[in-house]
Amino acid sequence: MDTRLSQARQRVERVREALARHGLTALLVPSADPHLSEYLPGRWQGREWLSGFTGSMGTLVITTTQAALFADSRYWVQAEKELSGSGIALVKIPSAAAAHHIEWLAREVPAGQTVAVDGQVLGLAGAQQLRAALEAQGVQLRTDVDLLAEVWPERPALPAAPVYAHAAPQAPEPRATRLMRVREAMARHGATHHFVSTVDDIAWITNLRGADVEYNPVFLAHLLIDATRATLYVGAGKVPATLAAQLQAEGVALADYAQAAAALATLPAGSTLLVDPRRITLGFRQQVPAGVRVVEAINPSTLFKSRKGEVEAGFVREAMAEDGAAMCEFYAWFESALGRERISELTIDEKLSAARARRPGFVGLSFSTIAGFNANGALPHYRALPESYSWIEGNGLLLIDSGGQYLGGTTDITRVWPIGTITDAHKRDFTLVLKAMMALSRTRFPRGTLSPMLDAIARAPLWAEGIDYGHGTGHGVGYFLNVHEGPQSISKAVPEATMAMEPGMITSIEPGVYRGGQWGVRIENLVLNRPVATPENDAFGEMLEFETLTLCPIDTRCIDRRLLREDEIAWLNAYHAMVRERLTAKVSGDARAWLEARTASF
Amino acid sequence: MDTRLSQARQRVERVREALARHGLTALLVPSADPHLSEYLPGRWQGREWLSGFTGSMGTLVITTTQAALFADSRYWVQAEKELSGSGIALVKIPSAAAAHHIEWLAREVPAGQTVAVDGQVLGLAGAQQLRAALEAQGVQLRTDVDLLAEVWPERPALPAAPVYAHAAPQAPEPRATRLMRVREAMARHGATHHFVSTVDDIAWITNLRGADVEYNPVFLAHLLIDATRATLYVGAGKVPATLAAQLQAEGVALADYAQAAAALATLPAGSTLLVDPRRITLGFRQQVPAGVRVVEAINPSTLFKSRKGEVEAGFVREAMAEDGAAMCEFYAWFESALGRERISELTIDEKLSAARARRPGFVGLSFSTIAGFNANGALPHYRALPESYSWIEGNGLLLIDSGGQYLGGTTDITRVWPIGTITDAHKRDFTLVLKAMMALSRTRFPRGTLSPMLDAIARAPLWAEGIDYGHGTGHGVGYFLNVHEGPQSISKAVPEATMAMEPGMITSIEPGVYRGGQWGVRIENLVLNRPVATPENDAFGEMLEFETLTLCPIDTRCIDRRLLREDEIAWLNAYHAMVRERLTAKVSGDARAWLEARTASF
Repeated sequence: MDTRLSQARQRVERVREALARHGLTALLVPSADPHLSEYLPGRWQGREWLSGFTGSMGTLVITTTQAALFADSRYWVQAEKELSGSGIALVKIPSAAAAHHIEWLAREVPAGQTVAVDGQVLGLAGAQQLRAALEAQGVQLRTDVDLLAEVWPERPALPAAPVYAHAAPQAPEPRATRLMRVREAMARHGATHHFVSTVDDIAWITNLRGADVEYNPVFLAHLLIDATRATLYVGAGKVPATLAAQLQAEGVALADYAQAAAALATLPAGSTLLVDPRRITLGFRQQVPAGVRVVEAINPSTLFKSRKGEVEAGFVREAMAEDGAAMCEFYAWFESALGRERISELTIDEKLSAARARRPGFVGLSFSTIAGFNANGALPHYRALPESYSWIEGNGLLLIDSGGQYLGGTTDITRVWPIGTITDAHKRDFTLVLKAMMALSRTRFPRGTLSPMLDAIARAPLWAEGIDYGHGTGHGVGYFLNVHEGPQSISKAVPEATMAMEPGMITSIEPGVYRGGQWGVRIENLVLNRPVATPENDAFGEMLEFETLTLCPIDTRCIDRRLLREDEIAWLNAYHAMVRERLTAKVSGDARAWLEARTASF
Repeated sequence: MDTRLSQARQRVERVREALARHGLTALLVPSADPHLSEYLPGRWQGREWLSGFTGSMGTLVITTTQAALFADSRYWVQAEKELSGSGIALVKIPSAAAAHHIEWLAREVPAGQTVAVDGQVLGLAGAQQLRAALEAQGVQLRTDVDLLAEVWPERPALPAAPVYAHAAPQAPEPRATRLMRVREAMARHGATHHFVSTVDDIAWITNLRGADVEYNPVFLAHLLIDATRATLYVGAGKVPATLAAQLQAEGVALADYAQAAAALATLPAGSTLLVDPRRITLGFRQQVPAGVRVVEAINPSTLFKSRKGEVEAGFVREAMAEDGAAMCEFYAWFESALGRERISELTIDEKLSAARARRPGFVGLSFSTIAGFNANGALPHYRALPESYSWIEGNGLLLIDSGGQYLGGTTDITRVWPIGTITDAHKRDFTLVLKAMMALSRTRFPRGTLSPMLDAIARAPLWAEGIDYGHGTGHGVGYFLNVHEGPQSISKAVPEATMAMEPGMITSIEPGVYRGGQWGVRIENLVLNRPVATPENDAFGEMLEFETLTLCPIDTRCIDRRLLREDEIAWLNAYHAMVRERLTAKVSGDARAWLEARTASF
């Protein structure tokens, strides 16, 4: 048994001792922090610390007799490997959205006993669901104990990266304007106060950025806004003095991160607090005194930031050109180096990241590069690691999903390249995915269409051939912010009114085909919602269309032309003409030659 | 002011007097009965009696000072006409599903006051939503008063049509088997009892039919099932003695319709009752004693009856051929008569219904024929009336949406025909709707796909041209039962797990284009979900496809061929070849000649 596994067994035992001390039967450890972020600071990676499972999502349950990790299909292979021998069972769930661990707890924990979860990291909406399900079976829920604090002596401290301003010209809307828009929305809800815990919302409202977690340029903070003041609860010393003074002058006071809960607890009686039940934890919600009326609604800033303004869209187009140029430089090197030197998935990450780092405005990666050759490409969330990676040798398909954070936008692109000789089966899958991507890219739809309702348009060309994929078709993308942001989601998610498609939203379109153990194909572009002006508009309401933002060739050597219609070939040729036109001035030498070859008319 | 309008004013005043007597501020009158049926017996058409609005759906609210009728876009033109001068305001709502009248009441009724609604006709799910919204504003809800009983002296009695057996061969599954399947589902829910109020569920479980409402062959009843017995609460004398004896022998006892509530009220303590919160009224739910545990889930029979068995599907194909033959006979007459005699929308209804009535197995129409010429075709729920109809004269498009009830199935078909000379604009709309219909008809999708997620596939070809339509794309269809049945719905409805597409479901596909005041186009076929057998299936799960059931030519004279792709033309030609092959033996003379002409290769 390796060290990691004996560690997991020891740590689970420590949890069981703590359960016994408190008279508890089970501990629930979600992948969550007090900000309900996608990327967790080390301090809140208790699930990984306990179980050894390093995937970005997964829920751990430890009872006095059992231990189980709930993960969706993206993580099954990885989790099986990492949990092997740990004594922790993998429960395969169909989708991350489903609350299978809740059903499991309700079934496995006997009536009269108690389940514990740290309310500080439990989303309010999820907490209500959990409590209802357990109470229906006579099981108690305790949310006021943090067992991790007892069993994890070396628990990491809070991150301390400095906070900085996202300034003009890339940040065209002053924070005073953003605060005003939030306050207008508060007034519409009749709210005197608004508490925000989600770090991308806070970064957007304040035009501040940080580096407290990987890939997302955010910082840990809470924000309390009233009619005249805003208080940012942030780690002491993280905001430089000049920036702090400037914020103070603009009506944003600073307070210590740890004081946020107390601020809620001392809200004056008679005030009305706006909170987003999906974006606040139970721990904070429970701080609100009884005399305060609570209005639940989606954070106004979540809706505002999803709609990029015209100036922002202009910077995004520029960032896309820089990102595309980096791709050209990387691929030109890659194609000329392949065969001359040995290249691994790790080399790809290194070289591609270096190419991005040379582009103006680049700040960092927007997520960990997925470079998966053949069978590794069939794992949608694959990541090559020094202890486990493949060499790019022989024949097959290479899938690269990567992106960057630029001062003027966030990118996310997936392309697939032929290595050696590829088969008709490879080409068929590639072409079907391309058809799926083009089908949705060309779709027009009424403004206000709920984004999940568009999902089937991308899947239909694959469904026609008996193929489906186990992830969403598209996620919202931030503006020099989180690469995954809502509220829109082109997926099988249950649609909600807040997911309406509006002008200015940026979303990915990324259908795929995954053949376990063989290869994966995914083609991903980012698109911008923009209004269509047609004479029909008067009769049937405003229509939107997608402007494709991502600029990078799609390798026509992987296409089975017989599967494409003429109008599809025309779309692809027009796309490549645009890519060539927009990128030519940004690249030279080998990269320009590569661009010209790969964008040649098909 | 005509009689109808002065009547509406008088009746609203009578309601206001009753409100005053009870100390109430508002009365809510939904379009509903104790069975939550689509078609209401006269006794529960209080909304129509009060307001004069004859549309099939709409909610009336009368307060001490205001009166408002909430109707969706299908009814706006009709409601404006019928409410004109009545003092009742029309509130235009975007979709029937939305609860705008609840928001309206919560806004308009002052805190501390009381809204009344008859709990006997209020769905449980809707009641909970209504109560929560009103209580949040400090408004009380009373559901134990039936003001209609006070103000409506001539209120119709309960319908008394006889109940009859739906027998073999068209009813291939014995009622004993159906009761057994329902009891197995009850056991899975841990239920000792199950109460059913929805009349199509009861008709399906018992293999009985009736004629208590228009178009749907159902009868008013409630059904209480336990582990060994079933009791059918039905009007005295409606079930003939021999049938009653047969039912008794098969474990289905009869009791009086009025005793259903008392039966619920006397359920033994400790029993567990399964009810469907969307298919039971608050009035019945409130009868359940406190000592009875209630499990809420969709009626098992609602899921069972949505999936037609192979034998049933065979009878449906036969019914479709009879229905198609009736259409051929009608259209052959229509095309030869047009110009020779004057034909109105009313004549069409009469002649088409007569053609159906001549087919074997025909029982009645499945809904009121919609025959709309030009501007009338732009009203999706138009119905020609003796006092208001159009002559089929001049040029334009004629839309006919009609259907029949056969012992072996229920039909629903919409076709559009050219009258005189039609324009390029007519042809363009027709062709776009045809593209939309074909796009969805050809779609394959994973078993279990939530039906609303398919909606966009039909809309996409219209969206591409800036066009949308204000109704759903498809509804479930019963088997010699309701022409509208769930749980599946290809529409913008919020998907629920119960809406999963399963083999054997029959659904309509009926996109449209409506140009108010000008013309309407809708093309509608019914389709059957059937499994696709492909080699891919092993890797990606079971896929379904649609078998088109409806057999009737689609008039190619209305097509702009330039808008169709070759694969679309091939689909249409294959469809017409199938229609010709399946219908030729069923028609002769003019009808056969017409069939051959209208199914000629395009």
